Amino acid sequence: MAGSAAAAKEQDGLGALDRLLAATQAEMDKVNALILKRADSHVEMVPELARYLIEAGGKRLRPMLTVAAALLFGGAEGAQTNYAAAVEFMHNATLLHDDVVDESDLRRGRPAARIIWGNQASVLVGDYLLGQAFLMMVETGKLDALEVLAKAATVIAEGEVFQLSKAGDLSATPDDYDQVIRAKTATLFQAAAEVGAMAGGADAAGRGALRDYGMELGLAFQLVDDVLDYRGESGAMGKNTGDDLREGKMTLPVILTLADANPAERDIITAALGKPDASDTALSQVVAIMTRHNALARTVDEANAHVRKAREALAPLPPSEMKTILSDIAEFYVSRAY
Amino acid sequence: MAGSAAAAKEQDGLGALDRLLAATQAEMDKVNALILKRADSHVEMVPELARYLIEAGGKRLRPMLTVAAALLFGGAEGAQTNYAAAVEFMHNATLLHDDVVDESDLRRGRPAARIIWGNQASVLVGDYLLGQAFLMMVETGKLDALEVLAKAATVIAEGEVFQLSKAGDLSATPDDYDQVIRAKTATLFQAAAEVGAMAGGADAAGRGALRDYGMELGLAFQLVDDVLDYRGESGAMGKNTGDDLREGKMTLPVILTLADANPAERDIITAALGKPDASDTALSQVVAIMTRHNALARTVDEANAHVRKAREALAPLPPSEMKTILSDIAEFYVSRAY
Repeated sequence: MAGSAAAAKEQDGLGALDRLLAATQAEMDKVNALILKRADSHVEMVPELARYLIEAGGKRLRPMLTVAAALLFGGAEGAQTNYAAAVEFMHNATLLHDDVVDESDLRRGRPAARIIWGNQASVLVGDYLLGQAFLMMVETGKLDALEVLAKAATVIAEGEVFQLSKAGDLSATPDDYDQVIRAKTATLFQAAAEVGAMAGGADAAGRGALRDYGMELGLAFQLVDDVLDYRGESGAMGKNTGDDLREGKMTLPVILTLADANPAERDIITAALGKPDASDTALSQVVAIMTRHNALARTVDEANAHVRKAREALAPLPPSEMKTILSDIAEFYVSRAY
Repeated sequence: MAGSAAAAKEQDGLGALDRLLAATQAEMDKVNALILKRADSHVEMVPELARYLIEAGGKRLRPMLTVAAALLFGGAEGAQTNYAAAVEFMHNATLLHDDVVDESDLRRGRPAARIIWGNQASVLVGDYLLGQAFLMMVETGKLDALEVLAKAATVIAEGEVFQLSKAGDLSATPDDYDQVIRAKTATLFQAAAEVGAMAGGADAAGRGALRDYGMELGLAFQLVDDVLDYRGESGAMGKNTGDDLREGKMTLPVILTLADANPAERDIITAALGKPDASDTALSQVVAIMTRHNALARTVDEANAHVRKAREALAPLPPSEMKTILSDIAEFYVSRAY
């Protein structure tokens, strides 16, 4: 893609994000108030740690997706506030546990909670947030949406374990990778969109459309994230460039590169893969090999394919301003990769 | 208590356990089958790790409590099987996370799962079991029981964080300790008994009686556990004697001892407290000081007080064989301390 076209695409993406932010702001104010309220506890370390993570922010894309999906279908029911907060709590619980599992030092551009409060508190506060997520779902009195999130919790954990079992496995395939990111990342996007549709009173077809949309959006999101891990700068991404390589994570860029690499290139990659102390020079060499084999660009292409599928999932729904925003927002995710 | 009286009491306790096992066996066969089925996953490491922990066994006192409570009130509804399996999964999730938090090497007399599969897998499989627990609750279609367990999950995590924040804190009081064990241990016993009563069709008074019974039973259980940590032998307990001291856990025996210790004794205790490499000799010295101040016996007395309250909670219920068993079983917990 030519530079100017890429820039225009990024502009579209950012425009869509602004429109999404504006369209969901009133609902998100309620969600954010609930999130802060429910991160509280009489045990001081719980709100200290939870708020440190929550207030670092991020864009709250997942709860925003829940709210947007509810508004797309009307959103009169009101359960979307609890659903959205529950989705964000599940996400934050996962982040806390992931940082322990990955031994990460940075999260959202700041020291990871485990660096400040320790692994122990990170595990336990993650458990607390997960419990609160289910409690907020229970309070809506809706078993069907609760089932979606409970199922998602098990699938996400399974995906994380599968990823762990594939760490450093040179025989990992693109299919393995697809299975990992469907489970560990896209399932929560899917659940966020689906429960939003349910809160908005969607029929079965509408609910299915948002399920599919969320899944495809989540896949695009993770693919881009895995490109940025090799291409990004620490400050911009809020984590360290090359973490995936050093943790031995078999993401698509490394899988595609290994498939095409000559023996000398393969040796350079395997020497750094899964080595926490691999040097920045070694990382640069690996990125050069990836670039030579076009592996990062091909991963972005794959993300774009999922963006198209996300748009297609929404196509059968009646036209509306929110539908246009949701169709366009998918571009935003991929625009980060340029 | 004279030796012969203690022996007789232990005999009563064991007799009650045999009667409880016999009375719940048919229901527990269903629960055990469900537990094995739901610990399954297409991701191999999940059932491997989960079954390693689950099959190591323990007495399954918590799910047995759920089943017994259901049978006490009739138990015709059938939801107790899912409730009991969910309670056991919550318990096992907590064990996996606790062993990571406490850096424990042994669990149920075998190497802890984290020693074999690592901390990472232990955290993630714990998350998986917690998700499955909620999913099994959802499948019963009963929101009220789900609320009890979701609330319990948050209280347990809060209690664990509170315990962590008090680790090595020489100013910890018996009230702090009471708050910790109510939350981290007794809440799950309480929830197990309460959801059992609900599955059995108990009225509000019956549900309340079992809630109170479960709480008191759980408190007695933890008090005895904390005595055994200083008095037990590694093989019999399934964990290492003195772990609590080395982890800096402020349990009642150490709190009572510190309150009465002279400066020299206090120095010996604080030199070992929270020191993972404290020697067995140092541990023996601490136990000798505890014995001098009668701290272990006073902790057992406290456990006995909760056993009495557990019995009293059941008193208003109509007489039945199961009521007698549940009244007597409380003795079993404390008999372990002799």
